[in-house]
Amino acid sequence: MSSPNRVVALSGGVGGAKLALGLSDLLGARLTVACNTGDDFEHLGVTIAPDFDTVLYTLAGLANLELGWGRADETWSFMETLEALGGETWFRLGDRDLALHALRTRWLADGATPSEIAAQLCAAFGVAAQLVPATEQRLRTIVETDEGALAFQDYFVRRRCAPRVSAIRFEGADVAVPAPALQAALSNNPAAVVICPSNPYLSLAPILAIVGIADALRGRSAPCVAVSPVVGGRAIKGPTTKIMAELGIEASAVEVARMLAPLIDVFVLDETDRELATAVANLGPRVVVAQTVMITRADKVDLARVALNAVGVTT
Amino acid sequence: MSSPNRVVALSGGVGGAKLALGLSDLLGARLTVACNTGDDFEHLGVTIAPDFDTVLYTLAGLANLELGWGRADETWSFMETLEALGGETWFRLGDRDLALHALRTRWLADGATPSEIAAQLCAAFGVAAQLVPATEQRLRTIVETDEGALAFQDYFVRRRCAPRVSAIRFEGADVAVPAPALQAALSNNPAAVVICPSNPYLSLAPILAIVGIADALRGRSAPCVAVSPVVGGRAIKGPTTKIMAELGIEASAVEVARMLAPLIDVFVLDETDRELATAVANLGPRVVVAQTVMITRADKVDLARVALNAVGVTT
Repeated sequence: MSSPNRVVALSGGVGGAKLALGLSDLLGARLTVACNTGDDFEHLGVTIAPDFDTVLYTLAGLANLELGWGRADETWSFMETLEALGGETWFRLGDRDLALHALRTRWLADGATPSEIAAQLCAAFGVAAQLVPATEQRLRTIVETDEGALAFQDYFVRRRCAPRVSAIRFEGADVAVPAPALQAALSNNPAAVVICPSNPYLSLAPILAIVGIADALRGRSAPCVAVSPVVGGRAIKGPTTKIMAELGIEASAVEVARMLAPLIDVFVLDETDRELATAVANLGPRVVVAQTVMITRADKVDLARVALNAVGVTT
Repeated sequence: MSSPNRVVALSGGVGGAKLALGLSDLLGARLTVACNTGDDFEHLGVTIAPDFDTVLYTLAGLANLELGWGRADETWSFMETLEALGGETWFRLGDRDLALHALRTRWLADGATPSEIAAQLCAAFGVAAQLVPATEQRLRTIVETDEGALAFQDYFVRRRCAPRVSAIRFEGADVAVPAPALQAALSNNPAAVVICPSNPYLSLAPILAIVGIADALRGRSAPCVAVSPVVGGRAIKGPTTKIMAELGIEASAVEVARMLAPLIDVFVLDETDRELATAVANLGPRVVVAQTVMITRADKVDLARVALNAVGVTT
């Protein structure tokens, strides 16, 4: 079973992974990161877990910083050849990245669980933190748009978030349960829970839709802190505020805080949004104002320290 | 249907592909090459057709001449990463090569036939000759050895032909029929049939084991010529003479001629083996002596011309 006093982080892809890296630098093996699985999909015969892999590559120091996604030192021969032969190239798979997907697919076929595969990959990449898929059951984010219902990657990558979103649902969430290591970490007297600055609708919502996770946070004994992914009415990356507008929600950190308020004790606002502190505090959470835009590794560690200290975890 | 007066070549991998390239230079779209499918296998989730691909890459001018297998301008990031993660690396898959396998696998899953895929690949690679798998049915070469029954690639690649061979069988051959384009080319008054200098036991035998092919050659109206893969008691490449020794067959071009005698009219012996001409002629075929070791492109075209002229096809 999980050791007590772990810190549990909930994360989507790039934005969440930045804070997860800061947390990892401070906590090492004491950190459990539960990654969104709603973006997972099957493509060209392999099973891809984009958010898990982004966190994995980021914590392993192998993230492709130029692209903002995928692996460092990547080559593209597979994709170039696929293109020359008339194959599907809308989802860019680097040669090294593809090897991970091929192995995951093979291991799944051999009967390994997603959590076992996650542990094996962490070991192979020298990642001390415990990265787990939020759930082992199949969960798929479906985006309802003016072009119809789109599988997540069709919306996000193939259509580049262009369709207008009317609703988002999470197929399978109603029967999905937390992955064993996440359940254990949440149950075994965790020191704190950190909600990383990920897209609230596409990355956090599918995690929170898993049976028992939101309930565990509502009934929490450990304190929970969330870092706003919206800064000055915009997201650092991704379609968060475009979706907020389409769903009729004001593009403001206050609205993210409203969604998360029942689950958290502390909300970290960016300095840019200092004037929103009262509005957020009126929703319940205590507000901490900090520099939340993470460019350097020091930025990530600093923000992780702010978040942890805000919920009484000393580092 | 196939146009009449086609030249049909039967080929395995590297050795056969060299003559197929010479034939292709002389005949272009008038050539049908039926490739051995006994080496085909599934690995890491993709379907691989090594002999077909070798012929394809060779005729497309994309064969990796340094390695003697695989594609030119190849990169190896996938394999390097697979190795770093503890995956299976005994079968070396280049990044570009892998793209072809992934597409084939996808197209098969989408319901395309192996022949349709072959045609699509020839078009994509600009190959004018008609390359087809010898059969569309599943056919698998199994090598019985002192280490037990081994799937072909286990014997050939993983175990590097080290086990001692006691027998070779072709699973599925008894219910396999020629691919439609091969059947059409053989039925529609072909100008000639050329048996390329491939391993008689591992590459030619599985083609000849397909229902109807050996019968078609025995009852042939068109002349058939074979080029010896054994020169001076040795094969240019591969385990042909090792297998002959293990099966108790003398490592001589005469024994290859004996195996093929009922099917052919002409046997092309290397100049080195000139003294075997009478022994071969006594088995039935007319003997042509030529330079059969193909190093340069001119060597390949010259040998192709010798073989074609020997059966009355002028070029």
